[in-house]
Amino acid sequence: MHTLSYTSDYQEGMHPKILQALTDTNLLSTPGYGTDSYSESARSLIRKACDCPNAAVHFLTGGTQTNAVVIDTALAPYQGVIAAQSGHISLHEAGAIEYTGHKVIELAQADGKLQAETIRSFCETFYKDENHEHMVMPGMVYLSQPTEYGTLYSLAELTAIREVCDAYQMKLYLDGARLAYALAAEGNDVTLPDLAKLCDIFYIGGTKCGCLFGEAVVLPDPSLIPHFFTMIKQHGALLAKGRIAGIQFETLFTDDLYTEVGRTALEAASLLRTILKEKNYQLVYENPTNQIFVILDNKKMEELAESVHFGFWEPYDETHTVVRFATSWASKLQDVELLRNIL
Amino acid sequence: MHTLSYTSDYQEGMHPKILQALTDTNLLSTPGYGTDSYSESARSLIRKACDCPNAAVHFLTGGTQTNAVVIDTALAPYQGVIAAQSGHISLHEAGAIEYTGHKVIELAQADGKLQAETIRSFCETFYKDENHEHMVMPGMVYLSQPTEYGTLYSLAELTAIREVCDAYQMKLYLDGARLAYALAAEGNDVTLPDLAKLCDIFYIGGTKCGCLFGEAVVLPDPSLIPHFFTMIKQHGALLAKGRIAGIQFETLFTDDLYTEVGRTALEAASLLRTILKEKNYQLVYENPTNQIFVILDNKKMEELAESVHFGFWEPYDETHTVVRFATSWASKLQDVELLRNIL
Amino acid sequence: MHTLSYTSDYQEGMHPKILQALTDTNLLSTPGYGTDSYSESARSLIRKACDCPNAAVHFLTGGTQTNAVVIDTALAPYQGVIAAQSGHISLHEAGAIEYTGHKVIELAQADGKLQAETIRSFCETFYKDENHEHMVMPGMVYLSQPTEYGTLYSLAELTAIREVCDAYQMKLYLDGARLAYALAAEGNDVTLPDLAKLCDIFYIGGTKCGCLFGEAVVLPDPSLIPHFFTMIKQHGALLAKGRIAGIQFETLFTDDLYTEVGRTALEAASLLRTILKEKNYQLVYENPTNQIFVILDNKKMEELAESVHFGFWEPYDETHTVVRFATSWASKLQDVELLRNIL
Amino acid sequence: MHTLSYTSDYQEGMHPKILQALTDTNLLSTPGYGTDSYSESARSLIRKACDCPNAAVHFLTGGTQTNAVVIDTALAPYQGVIAAQSGHISLHEAGAIEYTGHKVIELAQADGKLQAETIRSFCETFYKDENHEHMVMPGMVYLSQPTEYGTLYSLAELTAIREVCDAYQMKLYLDGARLAYALAAEGNDVTLPDLAKLCDIFYIGGTKCGCLFGEAVVLPDPSLIPHFFTMIKQHGALLAKGRIAGIQFETLFTDDLYTEVGRTALEAASLLRTILKEKNYQLVYENPTNQIFVILDNKKMEELAESVHFGFWEPYDETHTVVRFATSWASKLQDVELLRNIL
Repeated sequence: MHTLSYTSDYQEGMHPKILQALTDTNLLSTPGYGTDSYSESARSLIRKACDCPNAAVHFLTGGTQTNAVVIDTALAPYQGVIAAQSGHISLHEAGAIEYTGHKVIELAQADGKLQAETIRSFCETFYKDENHEHMVMPGMVYLSQPTEYGTLYSLAELTAIREVCDAYQMKLYLDGARLAYALAAEGNDVTLPDLAKLCDIFYIGGTKCGCLFGEAVVLPDPSLIPHFFTMIKQHGALLAKGRIAGIQFETLFTDDLYTEVGRTALEAASLLRTILKEKNYQLVYENPTNQIFVILDNKKMEELAESVHFGFWEPYDETHTVVRFATSWASKLQDVELLRNIL
Repeated sequence: MHTLSYTSDYQEGMHPKILQALTDTNLLSTPGYGTDSYSESARSLIRKACDCPNAAVHFLTGGTQTNAVVIDTALAPYQGVIAAQSGHISLHEAGAIEYTGHKVIELAQADGKLQAETIRSFCETFYKDENHEHMVMPGMVYLSQPTEYGTLYSLAELTAIREVCDAYQMKLYLDGARLAYALAAEGNDVTLPDLAKLCDIFYIGGTKCGCLFGEAVVLPDPSLIPHFFTMIKQHGALLAKGRIAGIQFETLFTDDLYTEVGRTALEAASLLRTILKEKNYQLVYENPTNQIFVILDNKKMEELAESVHFGFWEPYDETHTVVRFATSWASKLQDVELLRNIL
Repeated sequence: MHTLSYTSDYQEGMHPKILQALTDTNLLSTPGYGTDSYSESARSLIRKACDCPNAAVHFLTGGTQTNAVVIDTALAPYQGVIAAQSGHISLHEAGAIEYTGHKVIELAQADGKLQAETIRSFCETFYKDENHEHMVMPGMVYLSQPTEYGTLYSLAELTAIREVCDAYQMKLYLDGARLAYALAAEGNDVTLPDLAKLCDIFYIGGTKCGCLFGEAVVLPDPSLIPHFFTMIKQHGALLAKGRIAGIQFETLFTDDLYTEVGRTALEAASLLRTILKEKNYQLVYENPTNQIFVILDNKKMEELAESVHFGFWEPYDETHTVVRFATSWASKLQDVELLRNIL
Repeated sequence: MHTLSYTSDYQEGMHPKILQALTDTNLLSTPGYGTDSYSESARSLIRKACDCPNAAVHFLTGGTQTNAVVIDTALAPYQGVIAAQSGHISLHEAGAIEYTGHKVIELAQADGKLQAETIRSFCETFYKDENHEHMVMPGMVYLSQPTEYGTLYSLAELTAIREVCDAYQMKLYLDGARLAYALAAEGNDVTLPDLAKLCDIFYIGGTKCGCLFGEAVVLPDPSLIPHFFTMIKQHGALLAKGRIAGIQFETLFTDDLYTEVGRTALEAASLLRTILKEKNYQLVYENPTNQIFVILDNKKMEELAESVHFGFWEPYDETHTVVRFATSWASKLQDVELLRNIL
């Protein structure tokens, strides 16, 4: 029997359809740096999916890289980026944002989410302070959808945050590392066209959603970041064989594969949630996406770890721990069913 | 008939054996960030090929990224890196090195190569200058093997440069983006174990030598750059699915595929060189690797461009242009033979 | 009558003895960049005052500059600096630390002070987190003495923090922008020799303590930051006429002027505190240095502002405001007495 | 007898009129950070002298700092700055420009000057290169007036360079560290109003022209760099006691003192040049400003060094050396006359 593994959503290779596409095109010769026809086709499909015909679309390699390139190039040098204290850029990117010279202004979160009121209140206080020209000016709001805790912003919440951004001349940037698992979630009311309308920039995650690697950055208004291509190169983020990203995203946005990837993971997550609840495990959040945070007794945790892989999240108290189960495009319902007997 | 394409060595996908390996492993579940067994195996194979059992080996995505990460983390903040004026970091990386805060100290080259004497003379003058504490201190020498002009350093030349580095406490770093095409070249006398002995750091190129992407950074003495892993992450260069690089390099260093990749390209280059000479084309350099620089009459160039792809290099004079033909692991001798009737 | 001004401690020119010294030496010719005999003499006097004969002493221009240069050059690239949320580098330096590429790790404070336990607890959690190599490593603790709220660390508190620094291999850096007002304070038990023993780096503030400008950075162990001179230049912080700083600090450390500067300010502060308490004003902190934070009714505040200058600090509630009175070397007791009739 | 010292133009304190002004204002209380009335008055006087009523004027501390702050904040991140290979930013600023992330694109010079044709030719080649989006885009031209070799640009030369800047959308920035010695030079035809018309940014040097420290940055169009104040702070370059710079520049631009400073130095330089020529010393450049470069026999050099201080510049050949004599506002004709008997 293969291992039951729910440690993360980047543990397998690539969706079989992507493997097929890479195989089919392998020996063809194309120009480099994303100027090939596959990348162009992927861009067109993404523009169409976002209902945003003028958007610029760039393919980068990974999430931290994308966050650093986008935030650094979209901010003015005197600006910082507002993020939740639990945000990926606040905690888990080894200071990649500060490395580019910008402060991450960390604000309090609730269930992993920033609230419009929290941001508004910070900005009000900031601009009332007569010393604010000696301080880091908030120039952008960074959100993750789903958040690091697997929760989702509703359309109303995003719209309220957009209004605060408008009121204080801030850009809105959304990190969609796991966006497939938001788009397909029950109760989600935020679509790709909504994101293209609400955000100044966002990215559609590939690495955690079925690709080998790759994130598609969408700029609804390309004039927002002039010479973005050159700055991607300057940050060491330009792929020589750009088509490898292009082929992957072309496949993801053909026959709605990106949604299918999401749905597969969420069906597995839903079944797992049902089993956990049946067995009276305590979940930390009521969230509808592919990450499930469970409080385990430490002895139980060690016992379980022998038959199933999951992620250690954080200590809960002296005798309990929060762990994470993450499903993905590669999860199988019959495997989750096996957990019934193990959990 | 498919296009005859010699524009560059990163125009096709990946070596068929690599595709096979990715296919075979696709649905297996492994931990992320290069902690998987494939990456570990690739590291072992590379250590063995370099006869350097203690080396640290890290897999990054592309050449500019690798240069920026290595140079930034190996230099002290007050140091710059010496490079040929024709060096990739001097010209074609969009300022990625300066972006990290370090000056590229550009010295004169001959056939794309830095000479030990040029470096020594620069250092002598530098340290004699009583204002040198107001200047950027040379902390590293950057070489490319093969160079940007397809030429090679001999073992004697590298040894002489190493001596200058020792005399002036500089690190020696070698960019092996196309290293396969150096190792397999006729007349080459520099092996991987030589590089591991002579260099403080070097990288074995994958992107241009048969991989989808990927460069293997070798640090013969891992203590040279403490916390390199964290700084790779900080530079946005850490792959979540690290195994994808690991599997590729494991394949390249199994059954000597890296050499085979080089040999295939060089046989094609050799045949092409023979044909060009037969037809009295003028080559710019006498070099033994996979890049051939030819002076073409501009009319002839336009005519040829209809049946074969090559790279525009630079104007030669008002009526002639230097173009580049680059072969690769994907080049076929029968295709090159077709050029006999075209050139 | 001249204005009664307590807005800040950098509102007048320079202590008359410093003016005299600049006048006396004005037309002499000396070499530049701090290699002159006045700077050397100042360094000797500071080493002696710190009982630290091997210390390196460098003169920089201002506080934010000093913090940025010291923190950037003393940290490894993958490290950040721990500071109180109320720390000057956290709030009021326009992101100067992040501009150098380093995260300010903001921890909770009490009366403007970091507590050893807060730091220890953060470090414990950090190193227990198995993902900590994906996070910014704490490499330094930043303290201000006096703090931004005018409070003081005791010798016991500093010693406890030093122990945490030792336990987690962190450097201890103390910002002494207003150090004269700490050294001369009632109840202070931390001397310059104590600082030289406890800190890896600290600076003795000039700008706010009687100089035109200037901060003296003390490195008890000069090997801590190799080539510091060159990096000062690289940060644009090297004075051509270095002697101007040297002459000022030579004067400050002759006949104990630095202590006299502190005493003058503290006598004025003490008198002002007495008057405020007599008149039943509410002070925010019980602190013994030159900054007094008072809660004023907003109407009273506007009324007072017509006859005396003070600094707006922050809103207290809808009808009250916290304001700051700062005395300095230039404050006169007879002026403070005039406040009796005004307050 | 005091030493005859011509090592540099920053060896004495400050012009006596500046000392008087600092003395007169010493105990007055003013707000900080350049918001005081002296700074405002200095700004007005400079705007008037430049015939540029809308200019923004900011006071920084020193030359390297000013260059780094201006170049970093005026360039886009993907741009570099063109400078002569002999430019101060190319050689003698310890990599301060690269530290901010920007490449210095070094072009060939003649007598320390860049020629319009050199710049135009570089730009033409750059934009013709189809790979130029992989390269550092030239965004600014940096000139020094006088140059590092004491030579001057004529109005015609500056106008020609301005035209190239316009043709290629580059900013023109002029480093006036020694501008007083250009403005007062015989044959100079470039005035402050000319500079305000031709340059996007320039600075009027104080440190080498009679101040303790200080450089006045002039932006004829203030909208060129939004939030420049905050970025000055971010670079650690904001003076708390801003008025100290303000008072100095107010004095320099009252009763035409800046010109007088220049004239004093140039009269001394002219006499020294006459004496040197009478005695058949060989000058390296025919230049009209305060720096004189002389070729000395090495034995003669050692002999002279016993009675007069000068600067070592560079070896000329095995038995000769180029040395520099620099006069200043503090030079006295009777001292120069003493050189007649020494040289």
